[in-house]
Amino acid sequence: MNRASDFDRIFYPESVAVVGASGEPGRPGYQFMRTLLEFGYRGRLYPINPEAPEEILGFKTYPSVRDVPDPVDFVFVTVPASAVPGVISDCVARGVAGVEIFTSGFREVGEDGRKLEEEIVRLAKGKLRVIGPNCFGVYCPRGGLTLLPGARLPSDSGDVAFISQSGGLALYFVWAASGCGLRFSKVVSYGNACDLNESDFLEYLGSDDETKVIAAYIEGVKEGSRFFRLARGLLGKKPVIVWKGGLTQTGGRAASSHTGSLAGERAVWQAFSRQTGAVLVDDFEELVDAVLFFRQCRRNIGRRVAVIGGGGAVGVAAGDVCERMGLVLPVAPAEMQQRLRALLPPVGTSIRNPFDIGAPVLPAQLFKRVLEVLLSWEEIDVVVIDRVYLYGLEGLNGVPDSGCEERLEVVLDLQQKTDKQFVVVTEELTTAADKIKVEVERRSAQQRLFNAGIAFAPSLTRATTALARVCWYQEKVR
Amino acid sequence: MNRASDFDRIFYPESVAVVGASGEPGRPGYQFMRTLLEFGYRGRLYPINPEAPEEILGFKTYPSVRDVPDPVDFVFVTVPASAVPGVISDCVARGVAGVEIFTSGFREVGEDGRKLEEEIVRLAKGKLRVIGPNCFGVYCPRGGLTLLPGARLPSDSGDVAFISQSGGLALYFVWAASGCGLRFSKVVSYGNACDLNESDFLEYLGSDDETKVIAAYIEGVKEGSRFFRLARGLLGKKPVIVWKGGLTQTGGRAASSHTGSLAGERAVWQAFSRQTGAVLVDDFEELVDAVLFFRQCRRNIGRRVAVIGGGGAVGVAAGDVCERMGLVLPVAPAEMQQRLRALLPPVGTSIRNPFDIGAPVLPAQLFKRVLEVLLSWEEIDVVVIDRVYLYGLEGLNGVPDSGCEERLEVVLDLQQKTDKQFVVVTEELTTAADKIKVEVERRSAQQRLFNAGIAFAPSLTRATTALARVCWYQEKVR
Repeated sequence: MNRASDFDRIFYPESVAVVGASGEPGRPGYQFMRTLLEFGYRGRLYPINPEAPEEILGFKTYPSVRDVPDPVDFVFVTVPASAVPGVISDCVARGVAGVEIFTSGFREVGEDGRKLEEEIVRLAKGKLRVIGPNCFGVYCPRGGLTLLPGARLPSDSGDVAFISQSGGLALYFVWAASGCGLRFSKVVSYGNACDLNESDFLEYLGSDDETKVIAAYIEGVKEGSRFFRLARGLLGKKPVIVWKGGLTQTGGRAASSHTGSLAGERAVWQAFSRQTGAVLVDDFEELVDAVLFFRQCRRNIGRRVAVIGGGGAVGVAAGDVCERMGLVLPVAPAEMQQRLRALLPPVGTSIRNPFDIGAPVLPAQLFKRVLEVLLSWEEIDVVVIDRVYLYGLEGLNGVPDSGCEERLEVVLDLQQKTDKQFVVVTEELTTAADKIKVEVERRSAQQRLFNAGIAFAPSLTRATTALARVCWYQEKVR
Repeated sequence: MNRASDFDRIFYPESVAVVGASGEPGRPGYQFMRTLLEFGYRGRLYPINPEAPEEILGFKTYPSVRDVPDPVDFVFVTVPASAVPGVISDCVARGVAGVEIFTSGFREVGEDGRKLEEEIVRLAKGKLRVIGPNCFGVYCPRGGLTLLPGARLPSDSGDVAFISQSGGLALYFVWAASGCGLRFSKVVSYGNACDLNESDFLEYLGSDDETKVIAAYIEGVKEGSRFFRLARGLLGKKPVIVWKGGLTQTGGRAASSHTGSLAGERAVWQAFSRQTGAVLVDDFEELVDAVLFFRQCRRNIGRRVAVIGGGGAVGVAAGDVCERMGLVLPVAPAEMQQRLRALLPPVGTSIRNPFDIGAPVLPAQLFKRVLEVLLSWEEIDVVVIDRVYLYGLEGLNGVPDSGCEERLEVVLDLQQKTDKQFVVVTEELTTAADKIKVEVERRSAQQRLFNAGIAFAPSLTRATTALARVCWYQEKVR
């Protein structure tokens, strides 16, 4: 059996069967069909249910996968746990490449479930690849597939892959990350990982041309040494970013009842990271930020940072947080200070690094000249911009001609002309219900920053945390 | 000279003079006048400028403070640094209570500036209180005062006070915190603190009836032992939350050029916190969250937390982060697990704590019954709700009847009936530009959570960080 071709039939299926399909709008078996159609799956589709009406949503129903007249590549299973082994036998008999089992109630609920799961593994072994059980399955825009509640996920493809033991998290991650501009090659929620596990997906994604960055939410690893070997093999090829859930006792307890996983020690994972170059993150926001920064940042950046802000506390905060993160702020050489002094007023500004331009509303042309001086500085790799207004100011203070658009264009434009990396802190500024206009402008600005190859995060701490991870990784590669 | 009455004349002035007022719309001296009027100052107002037209914005201009016919309580100074000593002499002669000096170019720029600042101190000593120089001054809605760029800050009062060496930060903080529902008694940007310093404000705010929570951004402390004594004296009366800028070498370098402050060692500040019960935070977001949590949380809560989420990864993440923060998740007793088991399906849920209700869209009545079981549990103080949809779902997945409003009402209602504390994680969900409707609903939900006395933050990490700080403080008090 050719593994690569199985994966292709799973991710880009010409035909899909939905076992447990239903004609009743409230039922999951109906939702699954509808979600797939709404999302835009264009292959052949076979609802399977011996008790369902002749047609569901216009597609002819079959009593079993065995009864489908044409080849079936990929099968979605939403029948109760006890009926799953029968479905697996049918799929094996029909020559199906893979199934995703949405149903829960296996290893994660105890002994009976564990036995049922082992039965599935036994039936499928060497004949059929299984994703799940207890999962949301596959989101692969190019293949027309989406997670069960994912009818409205972006239908365009991208270069980020995400594998997740949690289905809900897979969904949350796509929502959050696609909001930043990121798009996905493949997202797989693989739940209990009874057959295909994190190592299988890592291996596949490692050689998948669509995928440039690989992220993972993992509760327990099935084949530790294989996973280690694969991760190390990807160092310098594709960054692997791992959020490991269940590293504490309390988290581990939850992981056991969530996906039946044996969690693992923090120290073990830290050693794994050091030795493989896989990047560990600690929470959901760090995961989103890391993926965005790895996707956006140039390959040759180091830890030497210039910070520019419009107001002194930014400089102080940036100095503190950069030092905590292990980033380095070199002091500007005298010659450069002179050039900046010629541009900026002597009072209320600071020209050593962090650079305080005095006001967050510096005229765009002057802001540009200051940035050009910074970009000409050979001792730095990254310019972090914080609290210089690039959006939203009119909505906040009512002054219409505040120059945000012009300053934003300066940044977008300069990124195209430099080999240094811009990082912009895109603060939410306010969550006041009556100031939603500020947020609309912020989102539009973020989209444009994304398109220009600029990295951004909504706080200085988050931005520098993610940046430090990219630097750490690039040092590992070097 | 009666100190309290000086402060009253500063924060609630019956008359204000603006020295350096201008008739030209582009100039700061014009903006200051306009901002004050737009914000709604209703006392007597005197533009001061020997070269200005007879009237500015309808107010008669005087050449000097000495020439104002009526008593003047508070004076704003926006003239160049070298002219400030003369203004101070005028104010002393006129019996003014206080001045705020917006002008920069003093201690923070070097030796000449330091001398000028000392001259001001000498002239004012014992006769006139000085805020600044190098500051944005006072925002006190009840007194009709606002920060220079603060025309659109909320005009209603609240119970939070914030003192900040940085003016920009004072503004950012009011924007961010008022967006969450918080309102302010007094905000003071006090810059170089040549006269009135953090200790003076802490003393005043400690006995200010309007103020319930005191927050501070501090770069350098002028009177260390007094500040220590005051902070310790407030333990159990009003929480004091401090963001100390410049705790690293790089941050300290920036602080010196920002407000001419000598920063200080991290260890010293940690000892200060342990010994006084003042709460230290590390960045802007932590400051906002801490203030909100201290404002919202009930006084008797401890570290024992129940976490409820709609999806297993929430439980894993919550277990991990709570343990890291020093919060405790007791395991639900058998009897309680039975009651929950009777409510929730056996598969896809977890009833030990963290509580996984299986889906983030549990019907409201069922959600209510589950929460009631949790609230009846004597071993916990706090219920954290994460990834149960209380807003925004229709905008995300297009399913209109998703029950968010009903679930939100359940939470709002139950908070009024319990002595435990709800904490809700109000994730941003997506920042996609075309999904702004989700954000509109989120903001409205946050406002209602605020009004119901519920604490919230946009991530699990931020929520538990802030919660752990409240618990730490309440243990200090006990």
